[in-house]
Amino acid sequence: MTTQTADQPARSTESRRHQHTERLRALREKMAQHGVDALIVRSTDRYLNEYVPQAESTREWLTGFTGSMGDALVTREAAFVVVDGRYHLQADQETDPAHWTVVKLSMAEPIYSGVLGKLQEQVRSGAVKAVGYETDRFTVHEREALDRMLEGTTAKSVPLAVSPVEEVRGPVRLKPGELRILDEARVGRSAAEKVAAVQKALEQAGLDLFLVQKLDDLAYLTNLRADELPYQATFKGMGAVGRQGALVCFHSRTAPEALPAARPGFRFVDEKALPQALQEIAGPGRKAAYDASATTEAARQLLVAAGFTALPMSGPLTEMKARKTGAELTRMVEAFRKADRVVSQAISWLCRAVEKGEKVTEADFASKVEKTFRRSGAVGLSFKVISAAGANGAIIHYSTPDPERVIQRGELMLLDTGAYYEDGYATDLTRTFLAGGSRTQATDEQKRLYTLTLKSAIAGMTAVVPQGVSGVALDAITRKPLWDHGLNYNHGTGHGVGINVHEAPPSISMRSTTPLGAGYVFSIEPGVYLPGWGGIRIENLCTLEEHPEHKGWLRVKPLTFSPLDPRLIDQKLLSPSEKAFVKEFQAQGKAALRAQA
Amino acid sequence: MTTQTADQPARSTESRRHQHTERLRALREKMAQHGVDALIVRSTDRYLNEYVPQAESTREWLTGFTGSMGDALVTREAAFVVVDGRYHLQADQETDPAHWTVVKLSMAEPIYSGVLGKLQEQVRSGAVKAVGYETDRFTVHEREALDRMLEGTTAKSVPLAVSPVEEVRGPVRLKPGELRILDEARVGRSAAEKVAAVQKALEQAGLDLFLVQKLDDLAYLTNLRADELPYQATFKGMGAVGRQGALVCFHSRTAPEALPAARPGFRFVDEKALPQALQEIAGPGRKAAYDASATTEAARQLLVAAGFTALPMSGPLTEMKARKTGAELTRMVEAFRKADRVVSQAISWLCRAVEKGEKVTEADFASKVEKTFRRSGAVGLSFKVISAAGANGAIIHYSTPDPERVIQRGELMLLDTGAYYEDGYATDLTRTFLAGGSRTQATDEQKRLYTLTLKSAIAGMTAVVPQGVSGVALDAITRKPLWDHGLNYNHGTGHGVGINVHEAPPSISMRSTTPLGAGYVFSIEPGVYLPGWGGIRIENLCTLEEHPEHKGWLRVKPLTFSPLDPRLIDQKLLSPSEKAFVKEFQAQGKAALRAQA
Repeated sequence: MTTQTADQPARSTESRRHQHTERLRALREKMAQHGVDALIVRSTDRYLNEYVPQAESTREWLTGFTGSMGDALVTREAAFVVVDGRYHLQADQETDPAHWTVVKLSMAEPIYSGVLGKLQEQVRSGAVKAVGYETDRFTVHEREALDRMLEGTTAKSVPLAVSPVEEVRGPVRLKPGELRILDEARVGRSAAEKVAAVQKALEQAGLDLFLVQKLDDLAYLTNLRADELPYQATFKGMGAVGRQGALVCFHSRTAPEALPAARPGFRFVDEKALPQALQEIAGPGRKAAYDASATTEAARQLLVAAGFTALPMSGPLTEMKARKTGAELTRMVEAFRKADRVVSQAISWLCRAVEKGEKVTEADFASKVEKTFRRSGAVGLSFKVISAAGANGAIIHYSTPDPERVIQRGELMLLDTGAYYEDGYATDLTRTFLAGGSRTQATDEQKRLYTLTLKSAIAGMTAVVPQGVSGVALDAITRKPLWDHGLNYNHGTGHGVGINVHEAPPSISMRSTTPLGAGYVFSIEPGVYLPGWGGIRIENLCTLEEHPEHKGWLRVKPLTFSPLDPRLIDQKLLSPSEKAFVKEFQAQGKAALRAQA
Repeated sequence: MTTQTADQPARSTESRRHQHTERLRALREKMAQHGVDALIVRSTDRYLNEYVPQAESTREWLTGFTGSMGDALVTREAAFVVVDGRYHLQADQETDPAHWTVVKLSMAEPIYSGVLGKLQEQVRSGAVKAVGYETDRFTVHEREALDRMLEGTTAKSVPLAVSPVEEVRGPVRLKPGELRILDEARVGRSAAEKVAAVQKALEQAGLDLFLVQKLDDLAYLTNLRADELPYQATFKGMGAVGRQGALVCFHSRTAPEALPAARPGFRFVDEKALPQALQEIAGPGRKAAYDASATTEAARQLLVAAGFTALPMSGPLTEMKARKTGAELTRMVEAFRKADRVVSQAISWLCRAVEKGEKVTEADFASKVEKTFRRSGAVGLSFKVISAAGANGAIIHYSTPDPERVIQRGELMLLDTGAYYEDGYATDLTRTFLAGGSRTQATDEQKRLYTLTLKSAIAGMTAVVPQGVSGVALDAITRKPLWDHGLNYNHGTGHGVGINVHEAPPSISMRSTTPLGAGYVFSIEPGVYLPGWGGIRIENLCTLEEHPEHKGWLRVKPLTFSPLDPRLIDQKLLSPSEKAFVKEFQAQGKAALRAQA
């Protein structure tokens, strides 16, 4: 639903294979010219985006693997794609085993640490002496971790200011979407208030400038949105707040005429004027701060080149952006209501069609979902619709709905989808349901696994936790009902949701040690995936609110209510309080749908 | 119950205060002689022991604080005692507020990180330029963390080979207890097998020697025990395994005559002969490994002085020691049965006495428990008996049973105790019960809080977890039933138990990210503590076993069964499965007591 046209993969498997073999060969030639015998190819772009336009993704262009996350490592002799549990199957299917080895990480290991582990093996074996990394795709932290790993070995890191993959591929230019200037009466905090808060943090830390590179931070700071990047409401550019002003440097457009008047505290400058403008908004001081886990090495070097001492600082926007204000929560819930309705309508449409014996494929259903979103006023999708029938549900991020796969009556359908509306917040919802009319009956196994997943979802959505608890605790509480039956899911329990559909903090996972706070918005999405059989996932968005009775405590509160499929619920497996929760949840869902109709 | 006589604190509060003021003054003088304006005084000794003989503890001698853990930081102007949630109250009570500031850490922060935080403040304020640390009480990791913290500041660290506190205090010599040579037919793995396993790890890593400094590792490696240190079955010394042999260097004794024949693979050397002997058992190579989190900076320097290149390595004994063999579990369960019976007998004795109107104090009860342990064959206590009546139960590690505090009928008693038997494994058990006969009735609040704590204990003792899960997940699962009611406990859910009563791994806490494995033995001990009202804790020892139905899964299995107080259980708050668990647990408890009687 984004404005870019996708780079279609070559039709025949043979010619695709040939194409990717050729690309890998050309890259190795380029690597030799740069004097590196290993190159890390990140899945991100220079904005550290998770969802990179397909046409821009160097990792996808090189490997053929289309998943949203996963890095590549190329040496003279070997080539690896490193993925986590979400993409074990898909990476196998999409890459050519003659050239690529898929490194499958457990859910507990971050992808980048897997890349470094693989690289370390290569360095130890003596195969690698010079490791190239693209300075505009590595955060400062990642570059530091690379150098730490190489310490004491015979290999060294080689910074590359221009991507060798881009040199081989040639340039790609995408059309920028329109910039939306949000009505500040609707967004909770004005851009001027946010600038003032950052300036206060700078003053307290004795610093003069903070660089804003993450696009959702920039969209948040400026209260601006665009439909320029796939599955995002952000725009390409860079921002900064100095002691004496703020600026935005657009990368793919000039400032619309109405903008300076709408955001009076900001200057809008082009890339050439940036160093000078940074100095001017900083005032007399020359201490510039950056968030080392959200700033590229290239951007850090830009600060140094502009005459600043560059210092790491934990981002002053991060916590502010995570703790939604009342107004933001209202805007988000408005969007969630629309998405609840879209999902509910699309499911009803499909079940009726299947019951009538119509041939509806996974791709037809995905397209129906997208159209229903568009009719409901959505500006763009949060991510490619996951429409997985039967056994395909076991592929956790199944992003290629099959135009040939006809959905059968009585099989499980997994729909995971979301969109952006005018206010620029993402929605995200997963429902698993039985294809077919109300008389279609679920098997005992379908009911058992769905109900156990539901028990996990309820555990997460009703959790009470002390202030400051970390995501891993909520993760374990959610998993427990499935664990009790020897069932688990190879992905996190939940991610933050905001301007991007994946916004951190928070993170609800087995490796998340950062504390959770009131006003955070995140998903709770337990699942069960049995290869060959299918998958079940139930995802709702929730917030954490102060507990009304216990001071210092937080409780999870669900914010999405698209009804659950009653045919899949085995009431015998639910406790009295779980039954009461389901009853209330379904009633809220119906009320919300009626209120909108 | 150990053989040392405790250094009695001065009787009058006034003279105690004067004594500690004088000690602090003298230490500051000594610090000035060493050219340091800050000194970190650890609670540990040169063996990194948790339970340091009172007479030897420099931290206790200096501050007056008697808790088992908590470090001190002394600068020219200020003095701090840093403690975690277990000792917030006790540290306040025992230290003189005119000189000492108690730094109270939350349960999520390790004590040493709190010390560094406080030190950082002092460094930043300009008050501290030279930080003294005692090389024999800092692990290599801790020394590295100190230096990292000081990096980029104007302060530097100063290694001190002799403790300035010991210089001021003068030497302390304790009588060594008798060494016990365990019957290797009873312990699961012979010392020779363990040496061979370490040698294999050395070979694989291309190393020549591994230094064994932790006393429980040394006792484990050699299958030797002693009753030399309070609340431990270990002995003072150092060990090493080299490619061509193993050695033990005793610090407080010479090798008994029978020892060389009983442990043929070992040499027994004194401290003077150690460097030469290390070289000889290493063979021709000179690469020595140490566990950086379990070896002091002084020990690392000893390796270097003996001509080795010293390299960090994760301890090859750690995982072997944590995963108990079948024989070890049998020995441990034998000890647990005896302790179950001791606790049950002592509780019955107290309840009868209280019912008859006898005046029994906390100290009387503690003494009764200790005597009952001794009669049951115990060699030493695992820790000082915690005998807390009524409101005193809110002090989590209440280690000073009051000889004046008479236990009242109808009040809650908290008993936390354990011992070592001949085989040298620790036991540990906590029961909370209503003082008085069977007709004594609990209040609604006593029943409610006890039953919620019991629900948490059951959640932990019945948990099913995937292999490789970390302790924090089991911690959260255990806490959930209390969290649901806005209740929590400011200590970990559990600790490993083995040769020491606190053995790591495992650790079941909010900050434990190390994985749990089959054969681990640990406590599950949730609690509720309300200052002024009292405390409840239910502690049982458990193991993790392979799940009989689900491959790749582990389940918790309780190993202690001393009966729970039925008067405190509100059946209405229990689910059907929780009721079934309690019924079975009580039946097992009674059967175990009968079988022994």
